Amino acid sequence: MSYKEGMLRDGALDNKTVIITGGGTGLGKSMATYFLKLGANVVICSRRLEVLENTVKELEEKTGGKVLAIACDVRKTDEIENVIAKAIERFGQVDALVNNSAGNFISPTERLSYKAVDTVVDIVLRGTYYFTLALGKYWIENKIKGTVLNISTTYAWTGSGFVVPSAMAKAGVLAMTKSLAFEWANHGIRLNAIAPGPFPTKGAWDRLFPEELAKKFSFENRIPLQRVGDHQELANLAAYLVSDFSAYITGEVITLDGGEVLSAGQFNFLKEVSEDQWDAIEDQIKNANRSSKKSE
Amino acid sequence: MSYKEGMLRDGALDNKTVIITGGGTGLGKSMATYFLKLGANVVICSRRLEVLENTVKELEEKTGGKVLAIACDVRKTDEIENVIAKAIERFGQVDALVNNSAGNFISPTERLSYKAVDTVVDIVLRGTYYFTLALGKYWIENKIKGTVLNISTTYAWTGSGFVVPSAMAKAGVLAMTKSLAFEWANHGIRLNAIAPGPFPTKGAWDRLFPEELAKKFSFENRIPLQRVGDHQELANLAAYLVSDFSAYITGEVITLDGGEVLSAGQFNFLKEVSEDQWDAIEDQIKNANRSSKKSE
Amino acid sequence: MSYKEGMLRDGALDNKTVIITGGGTGLGKSMATYFLKLGANVVICSRRLEVLENTVKELEEKTGGKVLAIACDVRKTDEIENVIAKAIERFGQVDALVNNSAGNFISPTERLSYKAVDTVVDIVLRGTYYFTLALGKYWIENKIKGTVLNISTTYAWTGSGFVVPSAMAKAGVLAMTKSLAFEWANHGIRLNAIAPGPFPTKGAWDRLFPEELAKKFSFENRIPLQRVGDHQELANLAAYLVSDFSAYITGEVITLDGGEVLSAGQFNFLKEVSEDQWDAIEDQIKNANRSSKKSE
Amino acid sequence: MSYKEGMLRDGALDNKTVIITGGGTGLGKSMATYFLKLGANVVICSRRLEVLENTVKELEEKTGGKVLAIACDVRKTDEIENVIAKAIERFGQVDALVNNSAGNFISPTERLSYKAVDTVVDIVLRGTYYFTLALGKYWIENKIKGTVLNISTTYAWTGSGFVVPSAMAKAGVLAMTKSLAFEWANHGIRLNAIAPGPFPTKGAWDRLFPEELAKKFSFENRIPLQRVGDHQELANLAAYLVSDFSAYITGEVITLDGGEVLSAGQFNFLKEVSEDQWDAIEDQIKNANRSSKKSE
Repeated sequence: MSYKEGMLRDGALDNKTVIITGGGTGLGKSMATYFLKLGANVVICSRRLEVLENTVKELEEKTGGKVLAIACDVRKTDEIENVIAKAIERFGQVDALVNNSAGNFISPTERLSYKAVDTVVDIVLRGTYYFTLALGKYWIENKIKGTVLNISTTYAWTGSGFVVPSAMAKAGVLAMTKSLAFEWANHGIRLNAIAPGPFPTKGAWDRLFPEELAKKFSFENRIPLQRVGDHQELANLAAYLVSDFSAYITGEVITLDGGEVLSAGQFNFLKEVSEDQWDAIEDQIKNANRSSKKSE
Repeated sequence: MSYKEGMLRDGALDNKTVIITGGGTGLGKSMATYFLKLGANVVICSRRLEVLENTVKELEEKTGGKVLAIACDVRKTDEIENVIAKAIERFGQVDALVNNSAGNFISPTERLSYKAVDTVVDIVLRGTYYFTLALGKYWIENKIKGTVLNISTTYAWTGSGFVVPSAMAKAGVLAMTKSLAFEWANHGIRLNAIAPGPFPTKGAWDRLFPEELAKKFSFENRIPLQRVGDHQELANLAAYLVSDFSAYITGEVITLDGGEVLSAGQFNFLKEVSEDQWDAIEDQIKNANRSSKKSE
Repeated sequence: MSYKEGMLRDGALDNKTVIITGGGTGLGKSMATYFLKLGANVVICSRRLEVLENTVKELEEKTGGKVLAIACDVRKTDEIENVIAKAIERFGQVDALVNNSAGNFISPTERLSYKAVDTVVDIVLRGTYYFTLALGKYWIENKIKGTVLNISTTYAWTGSGFVVPSAMAKAGVLAMTKSLAFEWANHGIRLNAIAPGPFPTKGAWDRLFPEELAKKFSFENRIPLQRVGDHQELANLAAYLVSDFSAYITGEVITLDGGEVLSAGQFNFLKEVSEDQWDAIEDQIKNANRSSKKSE
Repeated sequence: MSYKEGMLRDGALDNKTVIITGGGTGLGKSMATYFLKLGANVVICSRRLEVLENTVKELEEKTGGKVLAIACDVRKTDEIENVIAKAIERFGQVDALVNNSAGNFISPTERLSYKAVDTVVDIVLRGTYYFTLALGKYWIENKIKGTVLNISTTYAWTGSGFVVPSAMAKAGVLAMTKSLAFEWANHGIRLNAIAPGPFPTKGAWDRLFPEELAKKFSFENRIPLQRVGDHQELANLAAYLVSDFSAYITGEVITLDGGEVLSAGQFNFLKEVSEDQWDAIEDQIKNANRSSKKSE
C-alpha cells in the first residue's frame, strides 16, 4: 500500500475529541482531516477566525465529521480556557490535544532583537505549556486519561543555528513531554511528540524560505531518502499517537524526516564519493596495508 | 479501540516477504502472526527446527498465511545465506528482515567469563550484522527497497548494569541502524528499531528472571503506566515499521515501554510523596519564601 | 591529589574578565572564588546588591583578585546591558559569561499556576538568552572570541517530573548552547554547559527541599558514587571550560553528577540484590539452562 | 594560556600507574607523554613490540618517567592478563586503563566481507571489554578504585555511514562505559570516554584517508571551529579524566571535536548564506509579513 493512504482501521478515533492548535492550515489541517475520517470530533483554534471557519466548512464537507473552530491566541490563558470550555460544551469532553501552533524566524541570531526571540518562545513554548497545563488540570480533576501530541523538531535536541528561538522553545516542549509523561503517568495521561523533517505547506514555507533561499538549497537533495514528506505520512503517525493503539508509548518523540537528522555522522560526507572513486581508494588501501598493519 | 487489537488496514503487508530471526517463540512469533494476518509471507529461523515446525503449523492454521521455517544459527554466515536462498526460492524475493534473535545473562559483570560475554555479543551483534549485511548486498544488487527492523532495548543508549554483554551488543546494533540508514538511503533501504519495555513471554522471562528475582521486583510497579506491554502492541508498531506506511522513517528507534526509560529524571523519585505531604511541603515553602526571595 | 583542590596551573585565567550571574552565593560564589585565584577579573550580578557587596569584600580579601558587583534582574535587558557596560568600563572588555542564575519550584505540576511556571522560565531561559544575546552581539561587533558557560541540569534532556518549569527552561538553554555553538563558531565564540548533580548549598537547598523531604530522601544513597559533589569539583570543571585549555570544546554539556543520571538503565534496580542472592540466582540459572538453551 | 600547553598542576598523576593500549604511536603516545610529565608510571602495549620499545626510549628521555612496554594483541585474553601481571610486578598495582587501540575501514559497507567487519569489531569492542573485564575483576578483588578511559567517537551515538564496523564497536564500548559506571560505582570504579574529532596522526590518517580522499575533503573546512585538534588538547582532557580531579564524573563521554558533531542541526546548512544575502532575505521577510501574520 502507498504511504499516501490512511493506515489505521476505520473508527480508530471514534468517540474521541481532539483539540488541534493552529489547525486551520498546513499540517494541522491535514491531521484534522485524517482524525475526522477516523471518527474523531475535532476542535481547531488559532488567532484568525475567518481562516478557521473556511476550514470548518471544507473539512465537514470532505469528511462528514464534526469540527468546532474557536479563535485563540495561545499566549493568553483566558482564551485557552475558553477553547476548552466550548469544546466540552459541544462534545462532552476533551480527550486529546495536539500542540501544533508555531512561529519561527530564520536568521542569524545576532540580527534578532530581544523581542523577536520572545515572540517565538512565547508562541511555541509558553503557548504549549499553558494549553497542556490547562488540559492536564481538567483531566486530573475529571479522571480522564487524556493524551498530548506535540509537534516538535529534530533540532529540539540537536540544536540548530539560524532558528535559535524556535530551537530553544521546541527543546523546552520536548522536556515538558518527557517530564510530564513520567509525572502524569499514574493519572493515565500520555504525552508524546513527532519531529518532522520537511513537510512543505504553501503558506508557512513561503514565509520561512524566501525564494532566494529556496532556490539555493534544495531540500530533496539534503534528505537521505531524497524526497520531502507527504502530509498523510505525518497524519498517519499522529493518528497512531493520539489513538489507543499507542497506549504503551509515553514520553517518546518519533522522528519522521527521511533520515535528515542522521547527517551528523562524522563520515557521512563521503556519500559524495563515486563508485569509481571507491574502487581506486580500495586499491590504494590494499597497497598501503601490505606494508603496514591496520591496527594495534 | 483497544490496544489489544490489530491497528493497520487489511492487506497492509500484502506481497511482502519478511524474515524474522528467532521467530518461533515469544515476541518473534507474535510479530509473525500479525504480519501473516496483514498479508505477508513470513520466514522464521532459529537453531531449534522442531520448535519452528510446530510454530509453522500453528501459524498457518490460525492465519491462513504462508510460513517457511529454516534452521539457522545467526552466528554462521553460510546458514544465513541458506535462509535467504530458500526464502527467495519459495517466495520470489525478500522484502524485510526483523532481527529479533537475542541472548542475555542477568549477572554482575565481574561474575562473567570472557566466553559468556562473547556468546551474547556474538548472537546479538554479530548475528545481526551478518544477516543485515547479507540481505543488504542482495537488495543493493537486485535494486530491492528492503527494510530492516531491529528489536533493541532502551539500555542500548542509557546503558544498564547487570546486562552488560547485551547492552554492548544492542548498542552496536543501534549504531548499525543509524549508520546504514544514512548510507543505504540512496538505495531506498530503510533501517529502524524498536526498544520495548517489559513484554513478558513465558520461556524467555523464566530463564532470565528466576523466581527469586521475579518475586523481589515487580515490573508493574516500576513502569510509570503501571502495566507490562501486550504483544499486540509491539506487533502493531513492528507492522507499521515494516510496512510502506513508514516509508519516511529511517534510522529511528521507537521506545514502547510504558515510560520505563523516563526514570532517569533527577527528581522523579518524588513520585513517592503523597498528596498530603505535598500540602505540607507547599505550606513550608510558602513560609520560607516570605522571608527570602526565590531566585536571583 | 584530592578533588578538593584546584586543578589548573596558576595563571590559567590571567587577563580574562568573567561575568557570573547569580554569583553572590552558592555555586556561583565558588566559581568566582576559583576564577579569581586563577587570575581572572570577576563580575557578579544578582537582584540583591547587599548580598553581592558582602561577597565582593570576602572574595577580594580571600583571593587578592578584583571583583565588581552590579545589581541586575536578568529578566530586564536594560539592566543586563548596564552590567556589560560597567564591566567594560572597569576591566576593558568581557571575555566570558557564566549563566548561573536559577529559580526552581519542586511541586507536582498540576499544583502550579501559569504565573509560577512563567517565573521560573523567565529567570532561567529568558534571562540566559537575553544575557547571551547581549554579549554575543558585543563580541561579534568587537571581534572578541568570547565564551559562554551555562549551568544546566541532567534533566534538561532526560526530563524530570516535579521540576517541570525548570526542566523546560534548562532544555531551552541547552538547545541554545548547541545551536549558537555551531552558528557562532566562525566568530570564535564557544558555548558549553555543565550538568551538575547534587552540590548542596545552604540557602538554595533549604528553600528547595523543606526538612520533610530532606529527611525522606537521602541524596547520598541515590548517587552511584555515594556522595554529593564538592564545590571545588564544579569550580575545576567550570574553570577548564572558561579557559583556553578547552578551546576545541564547543556545544558540549558535561555531566558531573556522581553517576546519578545513569539510573535510567533498565536493570539497574538489581543493585539491591546481595552477593548471596546472586549466588543463589546463578545456581538456578545454571539448572534452568541444563534443560533449555539460552537463546535462539 | 595556550591550549598547546599542559593544563594540570604538577604531580597531578603522581603515584598512578596507567595502562594505555595502542600507546606506542599517535594519540596514545601523546597521552603517555603527558601522563608521564604529570608523574604517572605508564604501561604501553600493542602487537608491535619494536615500535613500543622505540617509544619507551623516547618517552623516558623526554620526560624522565618510567615506561613499560609489553606486546599484546587485545583480542587474546592471556596476553591481556600477561600485561596486567607484568605491570603489577613492575609498578606494584594498576590504577587506570586507557582503551585506545583501534582499527577502522573507511568503505561503503556493502563492499566489506563478514571477516573485515569482524576484524574491526574484535579489536575495538572485544579488545576493550576483555581488558576492562580483566582489570575490573582485579580491582574489585583488591579493592582498588580504578578508572577506565575509553577513546570513543561521536559516531558511537550518531552513527555514521562508511565506518559501520567501527561505529558498531565504539557504540558497544560506550554502552559498556555507562553500564559499568553504574554497576561498579559502589566499588569506587569510574569509567568515562572521550569522543575526539579530527586529531591527525601521521600513520593512522594516511592509512585511513588515501591522498585522493584527503584532497577532496578538507577537515578544516568542515569543523565549525575551523581547525583540527592539537594532541595536547586531548592529552589535557584525558589526564583530567584519569586523575582524581574528575572523581565525581562517571559514565560520561566528553566530546572534543571543534563542534563537528553539531552539524546535524536542521538549518545549519544556512552557514553558507553571506551577510549580503541575509540583508536581502531580511527585507523579503519583512515585506512578506506586512500582509500575513507570522504564526497562529
